[in-house]
Amino acid sequence: MPHLPMIALDAMGGDFGPPVVIEAASMAQKESKQTLNFKIFGDSKQIEAELKKFPDLKKHVEIIHTDKVIANDEKPALALRNGRGSSMRLAIDSVKAGEAAAIVSAGNTGALMATSKMVFKCLPGIHRPAIASVFPTKGEDTVMLDLGANLHCDPEILVQFALMGAVYARTVRGIQTPLVGILNVGSESVKGPDNVRTAASILSQVQFPGKFHGFVEGDDIPAGKIHVIVTDGFTGNIALKVAEGVADLVSLTIKDAFKSSLLAKFGGLLSMGALKRAKKKMDPRYYNGGMFLGLGGICVKSHGGMDSYGFSRAILVAADLVEQGYNDKVALELEKLMGQESFVSFDMASHSAS
Amino acid sequence: MPHLPMIALDAMGGDFGPPVVIEAASMAQKESKQTLNFKIFGDSKQIEAELKKFPDLKKHVEIIHTDKVIANDEKPALALRNGRGSSMRLAIDSVKAGEAAAIVSAGNTGALMATSKMVFKCLPGIHRPAIASVFPTKGEDTVMLDLGANLHCDPEILVQFALMGAVYARTVRGIQTPLVGILNVGSESVKGPDNVRTAASILSQVQFPGKFHGFVEGDDIPAGKIHVIVTDGFTGNIALKVAEGVADLVSLTIKDAFKSSLLAKFGGLLSMGALKRAKKKMDPRYYNGGMFLGLGGICVKSHGGMDSYGFSRAILVAADLVEQGYNDKVALELEKLMGQESFVSFDMASHSAS
Repeated sequence: MPHLPMIALDAMGGDFGPPVVIEAASMAQKESKQTLNFKIFGDSKQIEAELKKFPDLKKHVEIIHTDKVIANDEKPALALRNGRGSSMRLAIDSVKAGEAAAIVSAGNTGALMATSKMVFKCLPGIHRPAIASVFPTKGEDTVMLDLGANLHCDPEILVQFALMGAVYARTVRGIQTPLVGILNVGSESVKGPDNVRTAASILSQVQFPGKFHGFVEGDDIPAGKIHVIVTDGFTGNIALKVAEGVADLVSLTIKDAFKSSLLAKFGGLLSMGALKRAKKKMDPRYYNGGMFLGLGGICVKSHGGMDSYGFSRAILVAADLVEQGYNDKVALELEKLMGQESFVSFDMASHSAS
Repeated sequence: MPHLPMIALDAMGGDFGPPVVIEAASMAQKESKQTLNFKIFGDSKQIEAELKKFPDLKKHVEIIHTDKVIANDEKPALALRNGRGSSMRLAIDSVKAGEAAAIVSAGNTGALMATSKMVFKCLPGIHRPAIASVFPTKGEDTVMLDLGANLHCDPEILVQFALMGAVYARTVRGIQTPLVGILNVGSESVKGPDNVRTAASILSQVQFPGKFHGFVEGDDIPAGKIHVIVTDGFTGNIALKVAEGVADLVSLTIKDAFKSSLLAKFGGLLSMGALKRAKKKMDPRYYNGGMFLGLGGICVKSHGGMDSYGFSRAILVAADLVEQGYNDKVALELEKLMGQESFVSFDMASHSAS
């Protein structure tokens, strides 16, 4: 492990490639408390051309050239087979080899998950990795997982997600005893499908680095009273996209309202500063960075359409996970969890049933 | 069936009871193209006291007294057993007896669904009723179902929901060939769990009163390009509540912004008219009214916390379903669907598997 945090960047992923990735590295460097170093994988000519614009960044960058890129529409299985030597694969390999502490890519999500799962493997004892992300709320930010890696989740997988989310909230967000909820169609314990009810029953009996709040509903995500929200990847992915879409719809409707009359235009002009601050509070770029939790290496996915500021936020998410030693802490807490009788008994039962 | 549309109202449901229900009936009466008549079930003293405020309404109202009310927290199974003679049950019974054409209640959702299912039964051939509601979007309003009646749905149930939604979009919303999508985690046909992929495969082969668009994602709900969105009740309920919560969060953030400085306050004042129009466009009260589709009687659930305007919208939703003969048209289209070979072969296969 290098002395200074070393982040591997896939320069060729996403809609924009090196121009966004390089500027993002420079922005993250300025924003970060610690000095960041980068290994940047991709077309060296393009990368060097962009680096010229950021002389302060250059001395913290090592370029690893490759012509090979995994296409955004490549099937994950094909990317696995044919991805060797690609910018994404080389960046992941560099983390596996201990030459970097984390990888950030805006490339093909399926390929990134499949490749990092194959190369990093799951942390010992973790059955499935999850995609986690932070959501803006009325209160404190909330982390939700899984956002799409696992369509259906057995109870013990949901319990592991709760643990992974709670360790994130504690170590990276600094919340000593994070409140953890499971997403459901009602808050009463009798509600919902078997897997969430069993997971809730386990979580209410075991000790883990958080407090189990019980079931939460869809509107509890933006309400901001729960620090960690656990769900399966099917529901989580749809909830994430509904949230993005509705935020967009409301903003657009209000923007249109300000254009609807001369008076409204003038009013909008006077309020512009305040409105911009409001917009910033819910800026999807600020919340960019899907963390692949539960793997033996740290991997963060930037949204493919993000600009430099958005990508820089994903880099900082990765840097935080590295700095706080997230993976070591998850491994430790998992060991504690798995030693508890009330977990073991459920674990056995669900294993024998599946 | 009475000559003029007769709507049965459960006056005792919801958070407010008769004061909201009676004023809502008066508002719906004024808004409706046709003259509405009401049978109002509940405490006659309270109902009469409220009716005094609306002399124009009085001649269109018949009061059926009962002291018995199903509590908001009553378990559905208990409500079924003990609900006989309650305002909700009597209102449902009056539809079954042909004395009213639809029932509207703001009471206990589980009890309302369980009771109307028991009394009305499903329409011939329909396996499960669904809760459907209309969502505001950037384009045309979208109807989504199921919003919570069925946690998990087999493919053929999703196909029936598509049909029920399409018939609604055509008959009540006047869209000749509604676009129908199934909610999923990606738009590619290989994505998602078995039940949605099989349902999509059926829908792309059968003829039904709509056009199957394929899979849609969470942000396609507010995008407003699809007229009917089909999903299971677990996902649909969570999507609905995420949408409500996020709309609320964005509105609140903007409201706060206008309070943040004197200049912003002044700007907000100037734009107030335009902002109010924007708010109206997404007013949850306007979109109130969860339709229980697929039952042998028309039942609409008003949100328990709605005011008179909101409840009046739910009454109009019921009146529309009656006026357009929704149930007869669903029955007709279902018969056509079930006669098609490409449906029958799937239907058999899934029946034998379950």
